Amino acid sequence: MTPPARVAVAQLPLQVGRAAGNREAAAAAVAEAAAAGARLVVLPELVNSGYVFSGPDEARALAEPPDGPTVSQWERLARAHDLVIVGGFCERTADGVRNSQALVDPGGLRAVYRKAHLWHDEQDVFTPGGGRPPVVETAIGRVGMMVCYDLEFPEWVRAAALAGADVLAVSTNWPSSPVPAGERPVLVAHAQVAAAANRMFVAVADRCAAERGVGWVCGTSIIGPDGYPLAGPLLQDRAAVLVADCDLSEARDKAIGPRNDVHRDRRADLYDGRRDVTNTEKKGRHTS
Amino acid sequence: MTPPARVAVAQLPLQVGRAAGNREAAAAAVAEAAAAGARLVVLPELVNSGYVFSGPDEARALAEPPDGPTVSQWERLARAHDLVIVGGFCERTADGVRNSQALVDPGGLRAVYRKAHLWHDEQDVFTPGGGRPPVVETAIGRVGMMVCYDLEFPEWVRAAALAGADVLAVSTNWPSSPVPAGERPVLVAHAQVAAAANRMFVAVADRCAAERGVGWVCGTSIIGPDGYPLAGPLLQDRAAVLVADCDLSEARDKAIGPRNDVHRDRRADLYDGRRDVTNTEKKGRHTS
Repeated sequence: MTPPARVAVAQLPLQVGRAAGNREAAAAAVAEAAAAGARLVVLPELVNSGYVFSGPDEARALAEPPDGPTVSQWERLARAHDLVIVGGFCERTADGVRNSQALVDPGGLRAVYRKAHLWHDEQDVFTPGGGRPPVVETAIGRVGMMVCYDLEFPEWVRAAALAGADVLAVSTNWPSSPVPAGERPVLVAHAQVAAAANRMFVAVADRCAAERGVGWVCGTSIIGPDGYPLAGPLLQDRAAVLVADCDLSEARDKAIGPRNDVHRDRRADLYDGRRDVTNTEKKGRHTS
Repeated sequence: MTPPARVAVAQLPLQVGRAAGNREAAAAAVAEAAAAGARLVVLPELVNSGYVFSGPDEARALAEPPDGPTVSQWERLARAHDLVIVGGFCERTADGVRNSQALVDPGGLRAVYRKAHLWHDEQDVFTPGGGRPPVVETAIGRVGMMVCYDLEFPEWVRAAALAGADVLAVSTNWPSSPVPAGERPVLVAHAQVAAAANRMFVAVADRCAAERGVGWVCGTSIIGPDGYPLAGPLLQDRAAVLVADCDLSEARDKAIGPRNDVHRDRRADLYDGRRDVTNTEKKGRHTS
């Protein structure tokens, strides 16, 4: 590991059905990130296809395998720019269409992750993933993978963190919802707490440009292991590449204060529910 | 359940070793909350003793059993004001001193929880708890219990939520640490995400008044099931009682959007690690 590594997150104005234009926007963002010195670039969810499908048929028509034009292009870009790219793509597999995420580095495709927690009408379109989030050893450190709604499940985040992720690369299309005045969208808080609870970096690439009436949080951000943003959250509806220098070795030390450690302090013996001694007194009182 | 219930959280200026004064401050806060119509009042961690002990001997000298003066007073107050009180106290048990939390209602003591995740020098002072967070059925709904650092372990929060907590009552003494300009302390984000990830209310009672050089976040707050504050975070170093009307029945519905549910959408089959199909291709690539 060669700290610090410059990490980039790209917020892209994707358009459903415009695969060539979407690929072009992604390639331009990767080039911009590379020019800024980035060694890792995170792209949004479903870069090739866009998000708001008219239905399963449209998604199927836009899906491509990992050796299709989108991920192949990312392989070429990773090699040309000597960096790691993590991005989402609409994937065609033998058993259906997947909301997938690829990690490529100069050596080629390293991992494909399929989103396990499906949001809203994705349930009509995608086959959910059945595997845990990959954590891939790269030239800059260990990169965990995750897509959008996955991040709202702390068990999933913990799985990637316990598997050793130094940085969690989150490809997302966060649909906007009402935010009280003066508040930061709570989805950004999910990213902050994912980072803080695990002392790891979290790099979120969201999208922009309303699509068929759906607007976006535009929450592209890079969060440090203390839970505070190093870049973003952007929260502006425009294309952008944000960068931050991340000393990924910081994520190898889970210490929080001189006597605590966010992973060693876990009471795993109690979490599985088998050693539940709540209610031991059985006198109408709980004592634990 | 009779929604909505007015919930109160009390931020108290505790002083280590001043048990009578601390009890008096707590009683005054309960009376103020009752006068404001509260049906549930959450008090900070270690109300009787204060927090920054000189060492185990001082903590032991300040500890008391659940039938000691502090919890007995809360029982009288709960009966007199017809409400539920959840508060932290330094507890003496047969096997040591505990960082405990009691829930009392007009019927008396209902539950004692012992903090499972110990922060910093608490490790010299307290025996850690060995039981899961109680969730107590009360006149206003189901109240989950938790103390301070416990909240930073999403497994623990999830355990209380899956056990049915409508509102998680968090008694805390959050030591302050540097917060970047313009940022909300990340400990408050933990409370927000605990709420949002489980569609439950989270009521945090923090303390104020620096003690032996330790300052506090003063993050007393009530968070709604969407993760946004209904009251606070106060973030001011002064005694205060905050209230919010909480329709606790909202926490019985875990729906988020028309087709999602934060608990039913859990992929519990994947979380235990036994069905980990990451790396199935075994060709130097991960595919999941």
